[in-house]
Amino acid sequence: MSLNSIFQYFVPKDKKIFFPLFEQASNNVVVMATVLVETVNSTNPATREELFKQIDKLENKGDEITHQVYLELGKNFITPFDREDIHALASAIDDVADYIQGAANRMNLYRIDDYNEHIRKLSELVLQCSLDLEKAVRELKDLKNVRAIADSCIRINSVENQADYVFDRAVADLFLYEKDAIRLIKYKEIYSALETATDMCEDAADVMESILVKNA
Amino acid sequence: MSLNSIFQYFVPKDKKIFFPLFEQASNNVVVMATVLVETVNSTNPATREELFKQIDKLENKGDEITHQVYLELGKNFITPFDREDIHALASAIDDVADYIQGAANRMNLYRIDDYNEHIRKLSELVLQCSLDLEKAVRELKDLKNVRAIADSCIRINSVENQADYVFDRAVADLFLYEKDAIRLIKYKEIYSALETATDMCEDAADVMESILVKNA
Amino acid sequence: MSLNSIFQYFVPKDKKIFFPLFEQASNNVVVMATVLVETVNSTNPATREELFKQIDKLENKGDEITHQVYLELGKNFITPFDREDIHALASAIDDVADYIQGAANRMNLYRIDDYNEHIRKLSELVLQCSLDLEKAVRELKDLKNVRAIADSCIRINSVENQADYVFDRAVADLFLYEKDAIRLIKYKEIYSALETATDMCEDAADVMESILVKNA
Repeated sequence: MSLNSIFQYFVPKDKKIFFPLFEQASNNVVVMATVLVETVNSTNPATREELFKQIDKLENKGDEITHQVYLELGKNFITPFDREDIHALASAIDDVADYIQGAANRMNLYRIDDYNEHIRKLSELVLQCSLDLEKAVRELKDLKNVRAIADSCIRINSVENQADYVFDRAVADLFLYEKDAIRLIKYKEIYSALETATDMCEDAADVMESILVKNA
Repeated sequence: MSLNSIFQYFVPKDKKIFFPLFEQASNNVVVMATVLVETVNSTNPATREELFKQIDKLENKGDEITHQVYLELGKNFITPFDREDIHALASAIDDVADYIQGAANRMNLYRIDDYNEHIRKLSELVLQCSLDLEKAVRELKDLKNVRAIADSCIRINSVENQADYVFDRAVADLFLYEKDAIRLIKYKEIYSALETATDMCEDAADVMESILVKNA
Repeated sequence: MSLNSIFQYFVPKDKKIFFPLFEQASNNVVVMATVLVETVNSTNPATREELFKQIDKLENKGDEITHQVYLELGKNFITPFDREDIHALASAIDDVADYIQGAANRMNLYRIDDYNEHIRKLSELVLQCSLDLEKAVRELKDLKNVRAIADSCIRINSVENQADYVFDRAVADLFLYEKDAIRLIKYKEIYSALETATDMCEDAADVMESILVKNA
C-alpha cells in the first residue's frame, strides 16, 4: 500500500464526520424556523404553548449537535477546512437556533397575544434564510458547486436586508401608535430577536464565504 | 526573467487591488460621519430629510465597496495580508457605516425634534474616530509608518472611551429628567447606535493592530 | 551550544511573558466580581459608592494588563499559541471586566435602591464563572492538564446557561409586576449587563477550547 493510498484511506473518514453534523444542525434550524412560523400563525394559545415547548426541545437538540462538532474537532487531526472555520460555522448555526428560541421564548414569557403582521413577516424571513443556510451547508460537502453556495449566501444577505427593513418599519410603527411603553418594549424586543436571527444567518453565510475564499 | 522577477511582476498587481478599496471604504465612512454631524446641527427639518437620504445612499455605496473587496478576495491568490484579515477589516469598516446609517435612520424614523448636546457630541466623536480610521487605513498600504497606524488606533480607542463616557452621562440624564418612557427609549436607542459606531471603529482598529502584530 | 539548546534558551523566555499577564487579568476579573457581589449585598449606600469606585479602578487596571499583552505581542516573535488566539483571549477577558464594570456603572448611574434577588443571583453567577475562567487560564500554562481546562470551560458554559435562565425569569417578572416603564428599563438593562458578563466568560472559554483543539 503506497503512502498515498494510505492517505486516501484515512483522510475521507475524518473529513466525512463533519458534514453530516453540519447538515443535521442546519436542518434542525429549518425545523425550528418552520415551527416558529406555525406558532405565530396559530390562533390557539394551547397550540402555541405546545409549539413553544417543541422549539425548546429542538434548541437542546441543536446544542448537542454543536457540542459533537466540537468533540470531533478535538479528536480528528485532519479536517475538511481550517479547524477555526469548522468551529466558527458550528457556532454560527448554533447562534441562529439560539435566537429563534430566544424570540419564541420572549413571545411566551411576555404573554404576547397579538401576533401582528410584523411578527409573522419577520418569522417568515427567518425561515427563508434558514432554508438557504441549509442549502449552502449541503453544497459545502464537495465544494463542487461553488456557485450554488455563493448564490445561497447572496440570498441570505438579501433576506437579512429585508428583515432590517421590516424591523425598522415595525419599530417606527410602535413609536407612532403604541402608547403603552411596556407593551412597546415587549414588541420591540421580539422584533429585535427575530431580526437578529437573520443577522446570525448572515454571519454563518460570511463564514461559508470565507471558506470558499480559502478553499476554492 | 528570473523566478524572483516573475514574482515581483505578479505580486504587486494583486496586492495593489485592496488598498484603494479600503481607502474608498474608509473615506466613505468619513463622508457619512461628516453628513451626520451636519444633520444633527441643522435646525431645518427639510434639510435634515435631505441629509438622511444622502446617508442612505452613501451606505449603499459602502456596501458595494465591501462587496467588491470580497469579490477580489475570491479572485486574487496573493493578498497583502492574511485573507481573513482583509475580510475582517472590510467588514469592520462596513459595520461603522451600518451604525452611522442606523443612528441616522432612527433619528428619522422616530421623528426626533430635539437634537440635544449629547447627540451632537456623540456624532462629533463618531466623525473624529472615522478620521483616524481613514488615516490608519491610508498608512496600511506600505506598513512603513507603523507608528502612525498605531497612533491612530490609540486615538480611536481614546475617542471610543470618551463616547462611552458621554453615552453614560446621556443615559443617566434621561433617567433623571425624562418622564416620558417612550421618549426615553427613543433617545436611548439613538445614543446607543452612535456609541456603537465608535465601538465598530475600535473593532476596525483592533483588526489593524493585529495586522501590525502579524506583519510588522 | 547546539541549535536545540539555543532554542530552548530563547523560546521559554518569550513564551513565559504571556502567562503571568493572563493570570493577572483573570485574577483581576475575579476580584472585580467579588467586589460586585459585595456591592449588591450591601445595604449601605455609602459603602456601595465606595465599592463602585473600586470596580472602576480595577477595570482600569485590567485595561493596562490587556494593553501590555498587546505590547508584548508586538515585541515577541515566538508565542506559546497563535498570535491571534493570544489577542482573542486577552480581549475576551477584558470584555468580562468591561461588562462587570458596565453593570456596576448602571446600578450607580440609575441610582438603583432595590438590589433584588435576581441582581444578587446574577452577580453570584458572574463570580462563579470568573473563578472557573481563572482556573482554566492557570492551567493553560503547560497544557498538561487538558482535562481541567476543558472541565472549567464546560462549567462556564453551564453557569452561562443558568444566567440565561435567571435573566429570562427576571425579565418575565419585570413585565408581570413592574408598572413603571422607566424602572422596568433600568432593571432590564442591569440584568442584561450581568448576563452579558457571563456570555463574555463563555467567549473566553470558547477561545481556550479552540486553543486546546489546535495545540493539544
